[in-house]
Amino acid sequence: MSREMDTRSSILKAGAQIVHRKGFNATGLQEVLDAARVPKGSFYHYFKSKEDFGLQLIDYFAAYLKDMRDRFYEDHTLSPIEKIRGLYRWQAESFLRSGFKGGCPIGNLALEMGDRNDKFRKKLNQVFADMKKTMAAHLEQAREQGEISGSIDVHETVDFIMSSWEGALMQMKVSKSTSPHEVFDRMVFERLLRSA
Amino acid sequence: MSREMDTRSSILKAGAQIVHRKGFNATGLQEVLDAARVPKGSFYHYFKSKEDFGLQLIDYFAAYLKDMRDRFYEDHTLSPIEKIRGLYRWQAESFLRSGFKGGCPIGNLALEMGDRNDKFRKKLNQVFADMKKTMAAHLEQAREQGEISGSIDVHETVDFIMSSWEGALMQMKVSKSTSPHEVFDRMVFERLLRSA
Repeated sequence: MSREMDTRSSILKAGAQIVHRKGFNATGLQEVLDAARVPKGSFYHYFKSKEDFGLQLIDYFAAYLKDMRDRFYEDHTLSPIEKIRGLYRWQAESFLRSGFKGGCPIGNLALEMGDRNDKFRKKLNQVFADMKKTMAAHLEQAREQGEISGSIDVHETVDFIMSSWEGALMQMKVSKSTSPHEVFDRMVFERLLRSA
Repeated sequence: MSREMDTRSSILKAGAQIVHRKGFNATGLQEVLDAARVPKGSFYHYFKSKEDFGLQLIDYFAAYLKDMRDRFYEDHTLSPIEKIRGLYRWQAESFLRSGFKGGCPIGNLALEMGDRNDKFRKKLNQVFADMKKTMAAHLEQAREQGEISGSIDVHETVDFIMSSWEGALMQMKVSKSTSPHEVFDRMVFERLLRSA
């Protein structure tokens, strides 16, 4: 990795941790620079503004989350539904291990920034759309293989699963418990996807 | 209303609008005081600290939301399920009218503050618990009256509806569309509550 790439990714990595903990508005550029051990001039070499930094951070988070999902989606020992169900279980367990701090960085930014900055909103919406697309392909496969009810409207179901999961993360954070995941798991995988 | 009560509620009212728009951390006390046209000394007469103000604001939001819900719950021309369904539809329409700004003040604070301040977290969790209690009583009634499937686990279903709704609000904000409400409405009221 070149020095250039290295500085840019140090800033994004340090920024991701701080923004994930404090939110975007409460994060000061100076603390990101201090954490990344980078002078201010370097920051403006890679990012036009704090907004530009935030937009690049969304890509950084999205790539991180995609890698995490792909570990499940690319595990060919699992059925399509086992991949999705396993991914959520793994996320709930990680959230528990972190003491329910942080949660979904995309969801947090969506709620914080969705009504404050239209560039953020559009980019976050696109990240959700990409997540939904992959999940829809797996649900489609599950439906073809008879793993879920044939009467399922795949796109509507994916939208609902995605919303319900983000809400479950919120309830886990506020209750400091994985019980909202357990309810989500039973409702989605034992009721919703099974019912005709 | 006495002058005392009046000043305190002016501060809460002005603070509620600003916090709903910007979040709690990004809200400065000075802008709340300016909006309420109240000097700093008065603020500290009613609130021990910004944290104390935030905790009282949660009660203020909770009371506001309870009044809104009660307009549906106390409408005796509606069945138990019509009350719940109507309440969500009304909220989605209000959110659309506001240009998808703000959303659920309790949900926003839960995601922003749930992992940063344990007093906030506990109070927000209690507000959700109170909302769930009333909804559970209505679902119980609906089950007794045969309006929903008899095999429904009321408490688990209420937990799931509440999570799914908060997630749907997030998706509405980020997509600037009521479509996540429409999906929520069909999934909850036409599938989940009907299926055996």
